[in-house]
Amino acid sequence: MAKKGEFALIDWIRRQRRLGRGVVVGIGDDTAAIRPSKGAQVLLTTDSIIEGTHFTRPEATAYRIGWKAMAASISDIAAMAGMPKYAVVAVALPDDLPMRWAKDFFRGLCAVADRFGVGIIGGDVTSWKGKICVNVSIYGECTGKPVTRGGAKAGDVILVTGRLGGSLLGGHLRFPPRVEEALTLRKAARLHSMIDISDGLSADLGHICEESGVGAVLYESEIPLAPAAKKAAGKSGKTPLEHALSDGEDYELLFTVSERDAKRLTEGVPFETPLTAVGRIIESGLYLQRRDGRRTRLKPGGYEHFKQ
Amino acid sequence: MAKKGEFALIDWIRRQRRLGRGVVVGIGDDTAAIRPSKGAQVLLTTDSIIEGTHFTRPEATAYRIGWKAMAASISDIAAMAGMPKYAVVAVALPDDLPMRWAKDFFRGLCAVADRFGVGIIGGDVTSWKGKICVNVSIYGECTGKPVTRGGAKAGDVILVTGRLGGSLLGGHLRFPPRVEEALTLRKAARLHSMIDISDGLSADLGHICEESGVGAVLYESEIPLAPAAKKAAGKSGKTPLEHALSDGEDYELLFTVSERDAKRLTEGVPFETPLTAVGRIIESGLYLQRRDGRRTRLKPGGYEHFKQ
Repeated sequence: MAKKGEFALIDWIRRQRRLGRGVVVGIGDDTAAIRPSKGAQVLLTTDSIIEGTHFTRPEATAYRIGWKAMAASISDIAAMAGMPKYAVVAVALPDDLPMRWAKDFFRGLCAVADRFGVGIIGGDVTSWKGKICVNVSIYGECTGKPVTRGGAKAGDVILVTGRLGGSLLGGHLRFPPRVEEALTLRKAARLHSMIDISDGLSADLGHICEESGVGAVLYESEIPLAPAAKKAAGKSGKTPLEHALSDGEDYELLFTVSERDAKRLTEGVPFETPLTAVGRIIESGLYLQRRDGRRTRLKPGGYEHFKQ
Repeated sequence: MAKKGEFALIDWIRRQRRLGRGVVVGIGDDTAAIRPSKGAQVLLTTDSIIEGTHFTRPEATAYRIGWKAMAASISDIAAMAGMPKYAVVAVALPDDLPMRWAKDFFRGLCAVADRFGVGIIGGDVTSWKGKICVNVSIYGECTGKPVTRGGAKAGDVILVTGRLGGSLLGGHLRFPPRVEEALTLRKAARLHSMIDISDGLSADLGHICEESGVGAVLYESEIPLAPAAKKAAGKSGKTPLEHALSDGEDYELLFTVSERDAKRLTEGVPFETPLTAVGRIIESGLYLQRRDGRRTRLKPGGYEHFKQ
């Protein structure tokens, strides 16, 4: 796949990687070739991480940029309750970046890939007089139906993993994609709908509502706030709740299940990651129920920050 | 997959596309989901087309940029003698590009995808203060073993489709990926090795030689020159041969077969696209045999232009 340019880097990458199970052709040919697992559905996702939008330097080191790019794409597979298997990585890098930068970047990619058993089987490296643009496409597999955004039903309980609102203070460069949690949840309950929080809690809940043709109400008192959300609030002048509702890139799972499944899951959480019931699916509309019982409308738009 | 940003464009794209055969989940969820064909191996490739390196504006229109991005990735699948099936597209676009540009770009993507039966099943759209970066990842399928770069044997004949050296004068924005030709060749002969010419004839032949552990000799008198190669030579001061050997992005197929298969293929070419025997695989070294019988060494490097 690699065209002109960084052959030395590709050779270096190639030497780092072994062919994994199921891989017929790995890095270094026109395409990779793999054997799909019998009976599995294939999940395919692509996600770009671009300088100035998803990270800035020097806050984001080479290692962290690689880490985030791989983790964000793996998170998309987790959001379908799928198993990530293989990745192909395309990078456009400023031509003044040293080889050392590229190697650290690649180590960041690999740290996440290795942790989740994802094989990096191909890629495309180009240098240009532009900014850093990293694209990771993932091949995942799913036995049974993937969990989409479109299956939420009125009466469902809305749950979320982890704590929200901590992305701005560095969480967006360090989050662990919730692969094991999603697979465990899938075994433990019937997941009606699921998404990973990349646009922000209110926006991503909006996506579920739109695809499912339903509405939702979130309970202010229940939303689990990250310690960093409180810290961020001290600097931003917003409330921790606003950070939790509107900041993107928490990469936690947001999903809906029946009331019975929700009770079972929250009474005996099947993993160490926090799991919290934060709201209900209703017929229509998107609301926040305040601590005093009042309901206010929530803006679902990704960039439209919540105002009281 | 789409994060913040161009939701309007994504909605527009989504309305244009129907779910194709085998697609379980299409555009608009965290990932796409597809059913692989029974017994097929999966081919996976990613390729980026970036402004200033692979195209410049205004020479390349929005439509042509979309066209090239899709065609280049499909060409990688053709180079394995595979069948392209699904694409996911990630674009980073300057934030001052109008919606009309994005739509024309998408029409270019679709023109190629539709021609080759490729379903666009997902993507990621972001705008930034950078240049245009387009990434297309393709899921293809292959029954039987994919044709790699690594199977050339001493004594093989080297063949090439089409005519070479015409990319600089616009060919790189208009080439048709050689999907049908590759599939036909695969049925008609035992393909030992294959690559698509993206780095240039000498560089890509060098890739085959390196992966196969062999050498090669090209016959100057046999190399099929594109009319545009002669035209380009008039402007560049190089010879048409130099353009054919060293300019990248012809996207023709370069492959090797036994002498007997080569004879059969060239005596009754199984398609309208020209097919020419241009050289031989030898034990080692990379040479050009001149019209007068002398052999000179060829530089295999992508950027190292051929000098007499």
